[in-house]
Amino acid sequence: MSNFDVAQLAHVELFSPKPEDTVRFFTQFMGLQVTETKGQSVYLRAYEDFYHHTLKITEAKEAGMAHSAWRASSEAALYQRVQSLEKSGYGKGWIDGDLGHGQAYQFQTPDGHNMEILWDVEYYKAPEDQKTKLKSRPQKRPNVGIPARRLDHINLMCSNVTQNKNFMADELGFKLRENILMNDGLEMGAWMSVSPLVHEIALMKDLGGAKGRFHHIAYWYGYPQHLMDLADLLVENDIVIEAGPGKHGVSQAYFMYVFEPGGNRVEMFGDAGYLILDPDWKPVTWKEEELDKGIIWYGSPLPEEYFLYGTPDNKVSKVILK
Amino acid sequence: MSNFDVAQLAHVELFSPKPEDTVRFFTQFMGLQVTETKGQSVYLRAYEDFYHHTLKITEAKEAGMAHSAWRASSEAALYQRVQSLEKSGYGKGWIDGDLGHGQAYQFQTPDGHNMEILWDVEYYKAPEDQKTKLKSRPQKRPNVGIPARRLDHINLMCSNVTQNKNFMADELGFKLRENILMNDGLEMGAWMSVSPLVHEIALMKDLGGAKGRFHHIAYWYGYPQHLMDLADLLVENDIVIEAGPGKHGVSQAYFMYVFEPGGNRVEMFGDAGYLILDPDWKPVTWKEEELDKGIIWYGSPLPEEYFLYGTPDNKVSKVILK
Amino acid sequence: MSNFDVAQLAHVELFSPKPEDTVRFFTQFMGLQVTETKGQSVYLRAYEDFYHHTLKITEAKEAGMAHSAWRASSEAALYQRVQSLEKSGYGKGWIDGDLGHGQAYQFQTPDGHNMEILWDVEYYKAPEDQKTKLKSRPQKRPNVGIPARRLDHINLMCSNVTQNKNFMADELGFKLRENILMNDGLEMGAWMSVSPLVHEIALMKDLGGAKGRFHHIAYWYGYPQHLMDLADLLVENDIVIEAGPGKHGVSQAYFMYVFEPGGNRVEMFGDAGYLILDPDWKPVTWKEEELDKGIIWYGSPLPEEYFLYGTPDNKVSKVILK
Amino acid sequence: MSNFDVAQLAHVELFSPKPEDTVRFFTQFMGLQVTETKGQSVYLRAYEDFYHHTLKITEAKEAGMAHSAWRASSEAALYQRVQSLEKSGYGKGWIDGDLGHGQAYQFQTPDGHNMEILWDVEYYKAPEDQKTKLKSRPQKRPNVGIPARRLDHINLMCSNVTQNKNFMADELGFKLRENILMNDGLEMGAWMSVSPLVHEIALMKDLGGAKGRFHHIAYWYGYPQHLMDLADLLVENDIVIEAGPGKHGVSQAYFMYVFEPGGNRVEMFGDAGYLILDPDWKPVTWKEEELDKGIIWYGSPLPEEYFLYGTPDNKVSKVILK
Repeated sequence: MSNFDVAQLAHVELFSPKPEDTVRFFTQFMGLQVTETKGQSVYLRAYEDFYHHTLKITEAKEAGMAHSAWRASSEAALYQRVQSLEKSGYGKGWIDGDLGHGQAYQFQTPDGHNMEILWDVEYYKAPEDQKTKLKSRPQKRPNVGIPARRLDHINLMCSNVTQNKNFMADELGFKLRENILMNDGLEMGAWMSVSPLVHEIALMKDLGGAKGRFHHIAYWYGYPQHLMDLADLLVENDIVIEAGPGKHGVSQAYFMYVFEPGGNRVEMFGDAGYLILDPDWKPVTWKEEELDKGIIWYGSPLPEEYFLYGTPDNKVSKVILK
Repeated sequence: MSNFDVAQLAHVELFSPKPEDTVRFFTQFMGLQVTETKGQSVYLRAYEDFYHHTLKITEAKEAGMAHSAWRASSEAALYQRVQSLEKSGYGKGWIDGDLGHGQAYQFQTPDGHNMEILWDVEYYKAPEDQKTKLKSRPQKRPNVGIPARRLDHINLMCSNVTQNKNFMADELGFKLRENILMNDGLEMGAWMSVSPLVHEIALMKDLGGAKGRFHHIAYWYGYPQHLMDLADLLVENDIVIEAGPGKHGVSQAYFMYVFEPGGNRVEMFGDAGYLILDPDWKPVTWKEEELDKGIIWYGSPLPEEYFLYGTPDNKVSKVILK
Repeated sequence: MSNFDVAQLAHVELFSPKPEDTVRFFTQFMGLQVTETKGQSVYLRAYEDFYHHTLKITEAKEAGMAHSAWRASSEAALYQRVQSLEKSGYGKGWIDGDLGHGQAYQFQTPDGHNMEILWDVEYYKAPEDQKTKLKSRPQKRPNVGIPARRLDHINLMCSNVTQNKNFMADELGFKLRENILMNDGLEMGAWMSVSPLVHEIALMKDLGGAKGRFHHIAYWYGYPQHLMDLADLLVENDIVIEAGPGKHGVSQAYFMYVFEPGGNRVEMFGDAGYLILDPDWKPVTWKEEELDKGIIWYGSPLPEEYFLYGTPDNKVSKVILK
Repeated sequence: MSNFDVAQLAHVELFSPKPEDTVRFFTQFMGLQVTETKGQSVYLRAYEDFYHHTLKITEAKEAGMAHSAWRASSEAALYQRVQSLEKSGYGKGWIDGDLGHGQAYQFQTPDGHNMEILWDVEYYKAPEDQKTKLKSRPQKRPNVGIPARRLDHINLMCSNVTQNKNFMADELGFKLRENILMNDGLEMGAWMSVSPLVHEIALMKDLGGAKGRFHHIAYWYGYPQHLMDLADLLVENDIVIEAGPGKHGVSQAYFMYVFEPGGNRVEMFGDAGYLILDPDWKPVTWKEEELDKGIIWYGSPLPEEYFLYGTPDNKVSKVILK
């Protein structure tokens, strides 16, 4: 049974071998805002993100996810999760914090993805010229690019989906919302959440044969027209659109996938999908023969590399970026 | 502090003096589906509603809300709430159930709005010709009207907003998300939820001077274009649009308000608004001098009767329907 | 130099081996209206089409275009064109007319596509219950399907694009707006119009090796959201979407291509494209190496059969419909 | 009967008492591009405008339209119109040209609005970093503001609509598309065009009692979502939205009206409206009792000042700008 100890995805740290280009991509095209810069890292957020940052870009030799962070539902909930993680053997220990948040407990998924859980966050405070009269909005709507509204979810590639799914469920209270089950029993993907969103995390079988890789981070737009606007802008500026706009059957997301210049895949989520408000939701399982409509309900298909390429690039997958 | 015992708004029963016209409005223009008819009542749902019905139209002399029903988070949570309601003095007792659900506990708000809480629900089962390959969708997308996707929220007029707000918080665990506070201390409106939605219930000061009236039921569309499509269709068919499409500051809803032929106000919710995923959300309070932008951020303004007319009509308010 | 003797595409007659299914497709999904039925033919129009019909579906063994009809700019202009067509050797002679229009002059393109030109048309008169207060709209907005707004253009496959392009220019005054020129000098496609629309007619090289075939008819929607709505509805109802929604570079059309049950390809045109108001417009020529972006600017790619399949099906092309 | 000597609205020159703020409004919010600056004038265009400029902002004590320019269909057509204008008594004579165009013939409407007609235009040439692979687009899609796509039309206030309408028809070949006729025979408005657009010019009775004033310039967006995006951005930045988004019955435009900081009214045109391709179009006349739906089909109503305020401000109209 699920607990309610994790509340939301708080932020994601990505590695980039071209941090300046990466930051330019997120700010100039997706309208993200830089909150602060420190050392080799730049802290960013979308204009409807309430905290100090939801994205941290850190210079590194290879692209990939440095870590993702979950916010607990309360301070007590944080300690409850830490206790459980410590027992699980996947815990790594406390850190004092970072820009934008206080102490956090670090751990790994069975596949080796780095994560942390925390309670104490710093809220974004808009400077005078960014203050808005729309009181539930943390700052003015940006005037550059096609601005994303908020961080939505992450998708992680796994050598073993089921094992990592069980970890997220048992240790962190994530509920399974949808999954893909092949005829031979292999679980190809799992979509999990702690809120009515269909997923804050998706786990996908790594067909490239690697372990612990990152598939994509998703920012939320909400309006289909904005994906078209962004697609138009990206094509003009020679940014590679991998797929979309189009609509998945799984999760009902109206999607677009793009490679930021550092090599990480970014999803733009173009509508509201559907919300799971039913407390007794039974996971939707897509069988092998139903996958066709499950992967693409309509619109732009996914290329093969979608299932093979992750960051860091294991060189097995088809090279698609120069 | 909030509990998690209530999960969602399950259904609403509306009275209509012209039930055939009312049902025709919801089915022909808003694309709702009739599940069943019994006695003087017709049971309906939107195509993404998972349960037997989310709307029950019952013939009566006067328009108004017969009752609204909340689904508990579990059977245990149901009994916990009932215990608390019984102590509160607002409990009325159990009923065996109705089409679409099992036993339910009835109660009233301090203002006298009828409500119930339940756990046991019947899921909608699509007939063969309505089965869809989109596995998280309970039936095919309808081909008539501009189909609403799901029930969203209710808005109740109150003689005393604060008293009813406290009741919803204390007895049912609703969290205050936004409210309006006048300079003299009067609370004009309160938006509350048990999920990341900004509200499943709104409470508005009844400026018509009545008690226990109904302001509106809202169905969710998600796409702004659909409100324009529906507006076009309604104008063609002489249905009165009271206001919209336009965007509220409060709740950030892209709205349209329409009178169904029986006289009840219906809101069409045209985008995703914003979601509150922060477990430590501090309510947004709009002060009197901020109301201008709070009520209309942009677009179609609200007429005076919006604040005066509710159902049943107390004859104090300006008569706007013939 | 262009004359102004042809004003617009008036209507198109399509053959269908499954006329009932074809009519059902156009009425139930695309919201077209049946004006009249006579013999083996059904006459239809979209709700913003002003004339008696823009589409005539006629039962036949094989799918294909029976004919397309152009409306002259005036009666005098009609006679001027007929004189020229008679001299050209492609004229066939006058017919008395059909339901919805008076006398028309029949002719063929060099490739053998049947066409006619006419002046005298019958305007659609809405029955009492379809009359609208929107005085520039010929009838109420329909309440079924995702209604197309008006006929837009036709696309014809040609054994020789240049020859047919010259014919349309010389005999009918069409202006070349865009074309595709391969490195070996072959003209692969030509987009032509007599109005600020980029095209009322497109001519495409028939890579299936046939002569005089039909590629598609296009109805205009104007709003991208409606293509998504229609895609959703079609997928639910097992109608084959060949490609889209997506955006062409050539013509800047936001497109979707679908096979109606009789086998003809239908395009839904989802935005306004761009208008050519410049009287001195120089045709835009896409070279072979620019085709990538010319064919798909962003979104859903075109499958190979798009370039091979036309109606009637010459059996050379991949069979994609059962 | 109409001639085809005028092809399109080429550009508009506006006076502004706050030229820097005015230019900032058009560039930062509406995404217009500055082509050139000379003396007290700045030359601008939208990203899909093909010529050197479509808007010239010139510093002046009072807001208003300095002049509007029509492009002839050919050089011969230009001379034909000039001959006719000279005879009419409204001609003023030739000028050598301006930045972006060659010689032009100046004239006035009967109400005194300054206009010119020209043939020789300079096409916009994108600098290297603005070149696009979308060959029918003159430059890359801009990355700032919510970019308008092209100049659409002007609306002029007239002391006598009928007189000015006749002038535009007789001297320039404009066709009447729609008009408003009061019960006492007064023509309140006329919408005229030389292309399938419903209007390149609208003439409105000046209820403020003045002569020769300017009502608004309209830029075209095409997508309703963009008007909502722009509304959001403008409200954030304290720009006054007079009305909209909403839909007119007359012209079927999806509109928004805004005051640029210099005081001129600007319309954003948010969809494609409808096109008049019928060469035998009979003007649509809205009678007094039909005006309700004619002015607003749905959405945001027009305030009284819409009918009173024009530039220059005659001080009779309600002052709405500080």
